[in-house]
Amino acid sequence: MTNPMIDLSQIPTTAPEGVKKKQVRKETRRLAKRLAELQYLLFAEKKHGVLVVFQGMDTSGKDGATRNAFQYCSPSGMGCYSFKKPTDLEFAHDFLWRVQQHSPAKGDIQIFIRSHYEDILIQRVHSWINEDRVKSRMDAINAYETNLASDNNTLVIKFYMHLSRERQAEKLQERLDDPSKQWKHNADDWKEAELWDQYRKCYEDAINWSTIPWHIIPVDQRWYRNFLITKILVERLEALQMQLPLLPKS
Amino acid sequence: MTNPMIDLSQIPTTAPEGVKKKQVRKETRRLAKRLAELQYLLFAEKKHGVLVVFQGMDTSGKDGATRNAFQYCSPSGMGCYSFKKPTDLEFAHDFLWRVQQHSPAKGDIQIFIRSHYEDILIQRVHSWINEDRVKSRMDAINAYETNLASDNNTLVIKFYMHLSRERQAEKLQERLDDPSKQWKHNADDWKEAELWDQYRKCYEDAINWSTIPWHIIPVDQRWYRNFLITKILVERLEALQMQLPLLPKS
Repeated sequence: MTNPMIDLSQIPTTAPEGVKKKQVRKETRRLAKRLAELQYLLFAEKKHGVLVVFQGMDTSGKDGATRNAFQYCSPSGMGCYSFKKPTDLEFAHDFLWRVQQHSPAKGDIQIFIRSHYEDILIQRVHSWINEDRVKSRMDAINAYETNLASDNNTLVIKFYMHLSRERQAEKLQERLDDPSKQWKHNADDWKEAELWDQYRKCYEDAINWSTIPWHIIPVDQRWYRNFLITKILVERLEALQMQLPLLPKS
Repeated sequence: MTNPMIDLSQIPTTAPEGVKKKQVRKETRRLAKRLAELQYLLFAEKKHGVLVVFQGMDTSGKDGATRNAFQYCSPSGMGCYSFKKPTDLEFAHDFLWRVQQHSPAKGDIQIFIRSHYEDILIQRVHSWINEDRVKSRMDAINAYETNLASDNNTLVIKFYMHLSRERQAEKLQERLDDPSKQWKHNADDWKEAELWDQYRKCYEDAINWSTIPWHIIPVDQRWYRNFLITKILVERLEALQMQLPLLPKS
C-alpha cells in the first residue's frame, strides 16, 4: 500500500515530450463529462464516499484544477472546502477536529483545497511544532484516512501538484502584472516562496510517510495537469463498478 | 418589496405557447456559461453572498434544476445542502438552528434543496404545529432572510417549482417503471402526493407572506424550467455589477 520512496527532484514538472495539447484538451473534456456521469452514479448508489485532496505550493493551480475537473458535475452531492489559517477556536482543538467535520458522506465527493497536511507542512517549515509532533500527527493522518477508507467506503484520492520553482516565480509575477489575476495576489506568498526547499522537503516526507499513496501531477502546463487529474479521477471512480440501484423484483 | 397576492391556480405550469425548445436549449447553455463567469467574479470579489432556494412538490425537479443551472460552475465557492427530516439533535433546537449553519459566506453561492420553508409546509400540512406557531415561524423566516440580505450583502433568490398534479403523477409512475429512475422511488412520496391541495395552499401562503419575493417557475417541461431558472440567476447576479478587484495603484 505504500509508495516506493519518492524523490521529487527526479520527477518532471512538465508534460512528457510529444504529447499533443489540442488532442489532450479534447480528451480532457470527454473525461470531465464521464466524471459527471460517475458522480451521478455515486450519488444514486450512496455506497461510497470520495475525498479528493489537492496539495501543492502557492500558484500550483489547486482552484483551477478543481474548476476544470468537476466542470460538468452537479453541486448536489459535491462539497469543496478550502482550508485557511485556523481560527482561534480551531487552534484550541486537535488539528483534525476541523478536518473531520468536512469528511465526505457516502454518495458525496468532497474536495479539500489544502487539507490536514498543512499541519505538517507550514507548521513544520516554520518550526511551530517539533519533530516528535510531526511524527505523531502523521500517524493521526494515516489513521484518519485509513478509517475513512475502511469504515465508510471512502475513496481517498490525493494529488500533489508538482510545480517548478521557475514556473511559480512567473505565476506570482503574473498576479502583479495581469489585472485579471491581481485579485489573487497575496504578499505573504512571496515570503513563503523563499522557503521553497524546506517546503519541498516537507512535502516529500509527507508523501513518503503516507499510508494511502499520492498521485504526483506535473503542473507546469495547465492543460496537461487538467488532463491527468481528470483521467485519474475517472479511473478511480470507474474501478468502483457502480450501478444505478433497482427496485427489488416483486 | 412584497409580491402582489399570488393565486397559484391562475399561473400556468407549462411553457408559454410558441416558445421553441431547440432555441431555448441553446440559449440555456449560453446562460449557464455566463453564470459560471459570474460565479468566478463573485468568488474573486467576495462582496456578496448568494442563497438559492429550491422549493416544490416531490418530482418538481429541484435536483435536476441544480444540476443544469450550475453545470459549468466550480465546486470551489459553491455549496449545496439538501434538507432532510431533521435529526433528533436538530429537532431539539429551534427550526432555524440547522439552517443558519449553512448560510452562504460572502463570495459563495449556497443552494438549498428544500429549506427552512419545510418547517411551515410539511409540518403545517400534517398539523404538527398550530397556526400561531406557523405565523411566528414565518416572522422568523422573514427576519432571517432580511438579515442575510442587509447584514451580509446576500442575494436571496427563491424558486417555487410550479408543477401540475398530472405531471407529478406521471413522474412518480416513471420512478417505478423506468429502471434508470427507480433509485429515486420513495413510497412516502405517494402518500404525500394525496395531500396535494393542502400542500398547494401552504405553499401559496408561504409565498404571499414572504418579505423577499419568490420566482414562480412553470416546471412541467424540464427544458423551459432550466431556461427560466438560469436566466433569472444570470439577471440577478448581473445586477450586482461585480468587478475583478485590482491592486491599488502605487
